[in-house]
Amino acid sequence: MTHGDRNLNLDLDRRRRLGMVEAVWGADKTVEQILAAARRFAAAGQPLLVTRVEEAKAGAVRQQLPQLCYHPQARCLTMGSLPASPWQRLAILTGGSSDLPVAAEASIALACHGVEGELIADVGVAGLHRLMARLDHLARFPVLIVCAGMEGSLPTVVAGLLPQPIIAVPVSVGYGVSAGGHAAMEGMLASCAPGLCVVNIDNGYGAAMAALRILRILRMDMD
Amino acid sequence: MTHGDRNLNLDLDRRRRLGMVEAVWGADKTVEQILAAARRFAAAGQPLLVTRVEEAKAGAVRQQLPQLCYHPQARCLTMGSLPASPWQRLAILTGGSSDLPVAAEASIALACHGVEGELIADVGVAGLHRLMARLDHLARFPVLIVCAGMEGSLPTVVAGLLPQPIIAVPVSVGYGVSAGGHAAMEGMLASCAPGLCVVNIDNGYGAAMAALRILRILRMDMD
Amino acid sequence: MTHGDRNLNLDLDRRRRLGMVEAVWGADKTVEQILAAARRFAAAGQPLLVTRVEEAKAGAVRQQLPQLCYHPQARCLTMGSLPASPWQRLAILTGGSSDLPVAAEASIALACHGVEGELIADVGVAGLHRLMARLDHLARFPVLIVCAGMEGSLPTVVAGLLPQPIIAVPVSVGYGVSAGGHAAMEGMLASCAPGLCVVNIDNGYGAAMAALRILRILRMDMD
Amino acid sequence: MTHGDRNLNLDLDRRRRLGMVEAVWGADKTVEQILAAARRFAAAGQPLLVTRVEEAKAGAVRQQLPQLCYHPQARCLTMGSLPASPWQRLAILTGGSSDLPVAAEASIALACHGVEGELIADVGVAGLHRLMARLDHLARFPVLIVCAGMEGSLPTVVAGLLPQPIIAVPVSVGYGVSAGGHAAMEGMLASCAPGLCVVNIDNGYGAAMAALRILRILRMDMD
Amino acid sequence: MTHGDRNLNLDLDRRRRLGMVEAVWGADKTVEQILAAARRFAAAGQPLLVTRVEEAKAGAVRQQLPQLCYHPQARCLTMGSLPASPWQRLAILTGGSSDLPVAAEASIALACHGVEGELIADVGVAGLHRLMARLDHLARFPVLIVCAGMEGSLPTVVAGLLPQPIIAVPVSVGYGVSAGGHAAMEGMLASCAPGLCVVNIDNGYGAAMAALRILRILRMDMD
Amino acid sequence: MTHGDRNLNLDLDRRRRLGMVEAVWGADKTVEQILAAARRFAAAGQPLLVTRVEEAKAGAVRQQLPQLCYHPQARCLTMGSLPASPWQRLAILTGGSSDLPVAAEASIALACHGVEGELIADVGVAGLHRLMARLDHLARFPVLIVCAGMEGSLPTVVAGLLPQPIIAVPVSVGYGVSAGGHAAMEGMLASCAPGLCVVNIDNGYGAAMAALRILRILRMDMD
Amino acid sequence: MTHGDRNLNLDLDRRRRLGMVEAVWGADKTVEQILAAARRFAAAGQPLLVTRVEEAKAGAVRQQLPQLCYHPQARCLTMGSLPASPWQRLAILTGGSSDLPVAAEASIALACHGVEGELIADVGVAGLHRLMARLDHLARFPVLIVCAGMEGSLPTVVAGLLPQPIIAVPVSVGYGVSAGGHAAMEGMLASCAPGLCVVNIDNGYGAAMAALRILRILRMDMD
Amino acid sequence: MTHGDRNLNLDLDRRRRLGMVEAVWGADKTVEQILAAARRFAAAGQPLLVTRVEEAKAGAVRQQLPQLCYHPQARCLTMGSLPASPWQRLAILTGGSSDLPVAAEASIALACHGVEGELIADVGVAGLHRLMARLDHLARFPVLIVCAGMEGSLPTVVAGLLPQPIIAVPVSVGYGVSAGGHAAMEGMLASCAPGLCVVNIDNGYGAAMAALRILRILRMDMD
Repeated sequence: MTHGDRNLNLDLDRRRRLGMVEAVWGADKTVEQILAAARRFAAAGQPLLVTRVEEAKAGAVRQQLPQLCYHPQARCLTMGSLPASPWQRLAILTGGSSDLPVAAEASIALACHGVEGELIADVGVAGLHRLMARLDHLARFPVLIVCAGMEGSLPTVVAGLLPQPIIAVPVSVGYGVSAGGHAAMEGMLASCAPGLCVVNIDNGYGAAMAALRILRILRMDMD
Repeated sequence: MTHGDRNLNLDLDRRRRLGMVEAVWGADKTVEQILAAARRFAAAGQPLLVTRVEEAKAGAVRQQLPQLCYHPQARCLTMGSLPASPWQRLAILTGGSSDLPVAAEASIALACHGVEGELIADVGVAGLHRLMARLDHLARFPVLIVCAGMEGSLPTVVAGLLPQPIIAVPVSVGYGVSAGGHAAMEGMLASCAPGLCVVNIDNGYGAAMAALRILRILRMDMD
Repeated sequence: MTHGDRNLNLDLDRRRRLGMVEAVWGADKTVEQILAAARRFAAAGQPLLVTRVEEAKAGAVRQQLPQLCYHPQARCLTMGSLPASPWQRLAILTGGSSDLPVAAEASIALACHGVEGELIADVGVAGLHRLMARLDHLARFPVLIVCAGMEGSLPTVVAGLLPQPIIAVPVSVGYGVSAGGHAAMEGMLASCAPGLCVVNIDNGYGAAMAALRILRILRMDMD
Repeated sequence: MTHGDRNLNLDLDRRRRLGMVEAVWGADKTVEQILAAARRFAAAGQPLLVTRVEEAKAGAVRQQLPQLCYHPQARCLTMGSLPASPWQRLAILTGGSSDLPVAAEASIALACHGVEGELIADVGVAGLHRLMARLDHLARFPVLIVCAGMEGSLPTVVAGLLPQPIIAVPVSVGYGVSAGGHAAMEGMLASCAPGLCVVNIDNGYGAAMAALRILRILRMDMD
Repeated sequence: MTHGDRNLNLDLDRRRRLGMVEAVWGADKTVEQILAAARRFAAAGQPLLVTRVEEAKAGAVRQQLPQLCYHPQARCLTMGSLPASPWQRLAILTGGSSDLPVAAEASIALACHGVEGELIADVGVAGLHRLMARLDHLARFPVLIVCAGMEGSLPTVVAGLLPQPIIAVPVSVGYGVSAGGHAAMEGMLASCAPGLCVVNIDNGYGAAMAALRILRILRMDMD
Repeated sequence: MTHGDRNLNLDLDRRRRLGMVEAVWGADKTVEQILAAARRFAAAGQPLLVTRVEEAKAGAVRQQLPQLCYHPQARCLTMGSLPASPWQRLAILTGGSSDLPVAAEASIALACHGVEGELIADVGVAGLHRLMARLDHLARFPVLIVCAGMEGSLPTVVAGLLPQPIIAVPVSVGYGVSAGGHAAMEGMLASCAPGLCVVNIDNGYGAAMAALRILRILRMDMD
Repeated sequence: MTHGDRNLNLDLDRRRRLGMVEAVWGADKTVEQILAAARRFAAAGQPLLVTRVEEAKAGAVRQQLPQLCYHPQARCLTMGSLPASPWQRLAILTGGSSDLPVAAEASIALACHGVEGELIADVGVAGLHRLMARLDHLARFPVLIVCAGMEGSLPTVVAGLLPQPIIAVPVSVGYGVSAGGHAAMEGMLASCAPGLCVVNIDNGYGAAMAALRILRILRMDMD
Repeated sequence: MTHGDRNLNLDLDRRRRLGMVEAVWGADKTVEQILAAARRFAAAGQPLLVTRVEEAKAGAVRQQLPQLCYHPQARCLTMGSLPASPWQRLAILTGGSSDLPVAAEASIALACHGVEGELIADVGVAGLHRLMARLDHLARFPVLIVCAGMEGSLPTVVAGLLPQPIIAVPVSVGYGVSAGGHAAMEGMLASCAPGLCVVNIDNGYGAAMAALRILRILRMDMD
């Protein structure tokens, strides 16, 4: 197999085009592939986010490139200093503590872009009073990211109560019919509440980027 | 094709064994098959419930046997007089008005056994205040049947708020991922609320019989 | 079946809570149910949107309530005068002309809320030059709704080129593996482009409400 | 990621509301998360049930909090003393010995609430005489929980023979089409026997809570 | 489109090779295609079976070729005289009367080959006594064809009680999870009873041919 | 809904780019949409192919534009004269006569590009001698298109016997597990024969274009 | 959890009823459960077959009960001496060598009942000459068991060529669409060849028992 | 189990019939089975390709037969010297670096037949400029193999821009809805671009053989 061009054909232009830090999906990459990507972006003076990196793989990467920082709950590596003071905040809700890794991935992806995510954990609908008690607080955020597994009804309930943009993230938590997160995802897409947006199962990063696209138009002049 | 025994081998013993009126699923039966069943039960002096009978088919049946009564919203035929004063009541909740045919099927099946179902309609979670305003009223019923389509989260929310037996009925209302009722059914089975029971999609009759099984042990002496 | 409360338990409060006109999903409703809902909202002096109403059913409704207006391509009924001059615009892209009914449903739902949707039709990726020639024009809208059937790759390509919020609507156009819109929906959820939001198959109304949630925070003061 | 409130937002109110001991689904929780939950409930003087805890994880938890008790067949941890003499009994049937872990989870969850489950094992329909010989015995229980994998026909046969409430639990036992328990679950939902209730695959805990909801109305005054 | 050979390339050799009358699946064929096939076989002096022919289509065919005989319950056309006295008998069981068309298709396909099928109808497991009362009678047949829809547990129960070859035919009767017959089919394939054989959903013809293959080895000398 | 550009944004450039006549998928188009497309292409002096047009719709189109030609078996409309003498030939095999409409669609699509498809019908593997007898003839074609429904094994058998490019077309013929053509499609993709190419179910047009892409490189100079 | 009866409720009667050695599915059983079953059957003087036992588990069992014999390719344990000289033979065909474990399970299950299975390996349709060369040999067996993975077309081809009873066993060999054996299973059920019988994926034991049911009627007197 | 013929019934004739080196799918084979196959082909003086061989298994094979060569990225073993100078070239495109193992498998399979595959990596549609910049280069290849995971839209975009034969390979890269590669596969089959060919998920070998079938007709004389 000859290589028609450089084997590592990274999208160094994404930042200019979409205003997003380049992100590499680490799950199917080898340590060598992650290192090569990190070196290319370091050479270009650009930050980098690597998602879905298990602890052992992260350790092997950091042995070679200690300037990368590992965030264990989010299973992410970041390269480059994160913005110190956020220019915007949003809320990240979870139904249960099993949803925390996905919430953490969203949070770190937002932090790379100067947005702070405030975690509102364990407000699942099985104990509805926990959500109802926080409605006034939630009403103050411009965007809500809502993570839930099992039957995934939390985003539906939230979207019936609050008017902001709501990004629903199905989480692959559960067993039997909810194993893999498909029941949660279909429940969110089928929601009877109007205007819910859905991203792929466990896609905390995608939810963060969808939120970022929304937050950024808040500070633009558009005609 | 020879017939080893009588072609119409009805379960005339069900009433004694299970305490249930014989029910015939009418959707795949011809007018002739429904008539034959009705005549057998009439001869045995037993009542009969026929479910899933479209209006035209019901008309053709009643032209031959006018003593059958048709309930159009429930799409059911009944034969024999329904018990006059109910010995028990329960509540049947629906998320939206598209769930009414399923609720009506449950209601008529209960009525055949002397149970009155009180309909609490349109309390879907997209407008949660409608449900919250009725919690005290709902708390007074020994059993709740909860019908919902789309994402089917109503039974989950109810089961997190109230302690009674709750029978969840997914309804084949919706489109895209919710078409056919599978998303609602999986959401109910995957529910994060403890102790929810689920029956087949659109199975109002089954929900009624599950409720009947529960209500009947209330009046028995058991050790 | 007794009725514990009024059978038609409409969410008259939605407008105050979410800033949205009440919408009724017309596909599974009878003419009588649509008429009853319309009369309730007319009595409350509120506008109403009824989606998924086939032409014949719309005619039967309008014979009783001629003040309802039917929009045939969108298959929607509206009651109440639409806002005259829009306060905001967005773009609605379609891959092919088979996607137009879904785009039209989104457009009429937006129009009910004073938002104008500009249709950019037939820019599917099979002839990519059609999209590339319009990038500068598209860059000027705060939100893009992108409708596509078949393999559904149009939102992915758009999201890789433009930084705005993008709401992807899978359309049930196609045959074989794409029949029903599931292949398009899964392709949009699985997208390699960052930050795509997805709604249910054919859910033009939902896409409009998701866009509305975004557009409304543009004119609010939030801290 | 900032935390808007306490990260561990447990539902300490569930016991009052639903009369159920709080249960934590342990499969996706870390040892630290389980310990934190246990300490919160210990401080509140409440019992706790943790389900789906593998032996090694249970050992790590008990090294820190030896007052938790591990039940290996049920894969559950309990905290707090179980009620000494049960106020009610029910029967738990299994088709084969592979269903025992699910039956044991149901049993321990019932025991936490003072209900004793009597195990009737290995009465699968491939050798029907085993079930037929026990019908009189089974007729004496107010509720039957029936666990079965493979094609899952045991609850159907039981529900055709006995009149009590029957909660069917599909078990993820088998291979090929029965792997994962979906064939058993669909068979139970599709059952030709009237009034069968179904819970999620392997959901022994859910079956127990559904049974508890039924048993508790037996000792209440309801109008 | 040129035709490389005769457009109608029927398998006139099947009878010699497999000992089976040629069968044409009529559902997707036009009246013209069925007529052309019938004329070819008539010219070759061979009998013919056409399955899945709706009444109207059968009428149109018979207007041209009145020597074909239509069997309405089985939805089959036959050409050529059926063998007068059968050389073998078997039993065809059904769970309910909705399974009769499939049983009838099996019966007519057997009749074309000189085998008589005795119908044992309505012995579904919801009323198990109906089956138990006929066990001695059933034990006398060399092969049992068992048709069932819904959860499809009848063949499993039969195969646990009787030692003969059992051919299970899932029937597309039911709704929700059992619509289309997939739940019945998977239940039959997943059966805990040993040695059950399964054919495609509604495939009465296939069950008959599988039975024929078995019955024919009964009269052969094999080493 | 305003229109940002012309509503009918046809890909008039496809012919230059890909060497293919523009094809419109007619199933979801109205008569008006087909007429508009045809007029645009007529004005541009280009030919046009419209697939999946039922007879009645084709009649309505041709009443307005009689120069379009309808091909009933292929359910296609063509505009513009087809090339008189083909520059290349290939073979189109079918398993049974139910596959003919798909084969005919492939044939007419090829004819629009000057390629003649020779039909080899009814060579399904249930009567293998029909295929074996034609192997020498088949060996002379540069490309084989193989259409099959049911279990779809014909392309696998052909690909094990002959060395040419083989394009497999699953056909939505059958019932039960083969309904919709998915079993045939998966069988073709899973084939144990090396180098089989697959297109969407019933996609005769796509198979023709795949073949055209192959045939055209036969007459090009490539380095 | 109290035990209403003996925990190990084995079907000691199966041999008399069905003429089959008791078989235990070992995959989900512990070493202790297998030992307990073996001891019960040893005490009753009955033979036993345990399927799906991995090598390590088999070793642990045999350390306690060395009289059990392990058959590694078949992954089976047997207890009791196998019949010395077979009373009947049949053929077991495989498409490729990956199907051998399933064929071996069928073979050992037959051997337990005095039937010898002759293996005809590697006759998959990708190289059809391997099958064609053995047709005369295959014609001499009363029953054929045909195992195949991938697209699973081997049983279809065989059933079109030979008249005996054919039991098709889908094998979970392959990847992508054929992973898990579902494509093979659906292909076999959808087969265009008449009279194919199918068992569950990888169910060598079930195929053997289906064959046994057939072979046994060969030596019975039936009227 | 007796063996009717040699257990290892390899297709030594494939090379003559199809012009392809024999390939063995290594994933489900033991080391012994691979060695046996290699020795048979070595004895016949034929080359051999073994796909899907993990590193450890390859090492065990090479310890016995060091003349086999292992290609780690492609996970393939080859036996026999590869053709020195290729007679033809084609391009292999990948969307991201996770697709490289599949591309490498295609490349080594082509190399066994004297075809060189030029790798064009990381040209996924999320950064479309990477593809657009290489269109002229790509236009020079007679065939394109295009590998993509996630939503799999790269082949669709390429097929809309370039006229050559395009073989699309879905890759099992991704999570949630894209896990297993089914979303990519369905997207490719449903593609709106005309004439795309699809092979099984991860089937680099199959794509290579499909390409080989095409390339070989380029050097044949056909009439």
